[in-house]
Amino acid sequence: MALGEFDLIGKYFTRPARRAVLGVGDDCALIAPNPGQQLAVSCDMLVEGRHFLPTVAPQRLGHKALAVNLSDLAACGARPLAFTLALAMPRVDEPFLAGLAQGLFALADAHEIELIGGDTTAGPLNLCITVFGEVPPGQALRRDGARPGDALWVSHPVGGGLGDARLALEVFRGRVALPGDAFDTVRRAMECPQPRVVLGLALRGLATAAIDLSDGLAGDLGHVLARSGVGARLVADALPASPVLAAQPLALRRECLLAGGDDYELLFTAPAGAQAAVQAAAAQAGVAVSCIGRIEAEPGLRVVDAEGRALADAPAGFDHFRD
Amino acid sequence: MALGEFDLIGKYFTRPARRAVLGVGDDCALIAPNPGQQLAVSCDMLVEGRHFLPTVAPQRLGHKALAVNLSDLAACGARPLAFTLALAMPRVDEPFLAGLAQGLFALADAHEIELIGGDTTAGPLNLCITVFGEVPPGQALRRDGARPGDALWVSHPVGGGLGDARLALEVFRGRVALPGDAFDTVRRAMECPQPRVVLGLALRGLATAAIDLSDGLAGDLGHVLARSGVGARLVADALPASPVLAAQPLALRRECLLAGGDDYELLFTAPAGAQAAVQAAAAQAGVAVSCIGRIEAEPGLRVVDAEGRALADAPAGFDHFRD
Repeated sequence: MALGEFDLIGKYFTRPARRAVLGVGDDCALIAPNPGQQLAVSCDMLVEGRHFLPTVAPQRLGHKALAVNLSDLAACGARPLAFTLALAMPRVDEPFLAGLAQGLFALADAHEIELIGGDTTAGPLNLCITVFGEVPPGQALRRDGARPGDALWVSHPVGGGLGDARLALEVFRGRVALPGDAFDTVRRAMECPQPRVVLGLALRGLATAAIDLSDGLAGDLGHVLARSGVGARLVADALPASPVLAAQPLALRRECLLAGGDDYELLFTAPAGAQAAVQAAAAQAGVAVSCIGRIEAEPGLRVVDAEGRALADAPAGFDHFRD
Repeated sequence: MALGEFDLIGKYFTRPARRAVLGVGDDCALIAPNPGQQLAVSCDMLVEGRHFLPTVAPQRLGHKALAVNLSDLAACGARPLAFTLALAMPRVDEPFLAGLAQGLFALADAHEIELIGGDTTAGPLNLCITVFGEVPPGQALRRDGARPGDALWVSHPVGGGLGDARLALEVFRGRVALPGDAFDTVRRAMECPQPRVVLGLALRGLATAAIDLSDGLAGDLGHVLARSGVGARLVADALPASPVLAAQPLALRRECLLAGGDDYELLFTAPAGAQAAVQAAAAQAGVAVSCIGRIEAEPGLRVVDAEGRALADAPAGFDHFRD
């Protein structure tokens, strides 16, 4: 007989509670927030065919489902504490579950957080994770703090850039062909994003606004501009690109960089004079950062090339109901 | 053009934050737990065709999605604070969204809680809610506190009982026929469960263990017995039934009562001498409670009739991957 609902929770998703007062297995989990801290909460749902392809390895799917949620905590400068997982799947598939749990818990262990509860049910494959983190009052990075004159920054891998995940998607879609090792590299960017949690913590008190890049740089920057009531000048040629993406034609490169989606890097603003402090924060986090433009008082996003000429048809962000 | 992802969040799911420090619209929500309180967290995912039928009115679906989560807080004796909603749906359907939001917020307002964040995406219809509540340290109702000699109680509507939701499901399945008004009554039980939040709060310090009935009495009781390391004698004829269910044949009645699922009542244990206090708690909450058996040291569940004779073939609980 196939494993039942409660057996599979016990076998794959129950580990002893370390920090939680009460973990998996009761009606609720109980956690005791540290005194004086605020609780940061975020929630992301991943649907097959939209957020991941059926070809993804279960380990990578487990990693990614948690990574995209940790990325939201990073964008708030919150320290991760715990998470819940709700999982719908068509049938009990033990190799899938074992791989999923392995990828999920490897990333959870790397951030010293634990799974405190959740739900499992039959249904079309769907993973919904809610993460909890903590942040001292007034220190959370928000979207609404960008001010005219601030420098605009983006994080990226050392020696790498934005847009690789989108390039990988275009390979899967058959629009682009890449040699095997180049494909492996960009596929890893798509399937194994690294949440910038340490950078987010280091940017507390330094960044004036922050957001994580999930729907494409242009669209996500638009959220910051709208919430902050400002505009921005973005230098398209300053956007960091990996060697693989840099070898692509200009139009594709710009599309991947500006409207890629699934980057899970931090886009943030900081006072113009804070360049050395921003670089120090990035070094502490082991990531690179690039200054890609500046915040201006005039509303709207102006995308320019290296000579300051406006790009007429800059791509927009990703919308789950339109793209 | 159809409403996009961010437009629909703005139109249907964004209301001003009242208690949260930061509500919908940033990477994370921020909440400030009351000093000294523990945080209770629960998460339930609802899938079309499994947790609700395509025929359900959107208002009732919105109500139910939140109600089943509040029911978990009730079973812990936690006071509800806030919730997140992740929603996958095949396409943007504005009448559906308007109804869903109406049912959701009506119940949220009744419990003075707010939606602090979430996610929306295209995909097969799926609603995942995570709720947060608070409870003083050491006062949460848990599954592991039942002791031999405790009385076993269940809550139910005044003049009603358990099993109506299952009876409604059997009507939808074509196995049972009911007159229109009787069907409306049991359909309401299935689609509009009332979470026993006030009762859960009143049972703090009184109940020794508690669980909410979601997968059927026999199965859910089994979780309490296993976690508490005890057994129970359950008097099948003491189980409260509505007039509609009481008019059904014995075998169907027992199946609905013992293995119904979707009851969202509280099953709890309390010291044998606490009967008056339990009744007072129920009166305070405006619900009825019935004593339906007792906890025994011998492991296992013994279902008996009014004369104490064992029922040979008592139905088991519901499993989402088996039923």
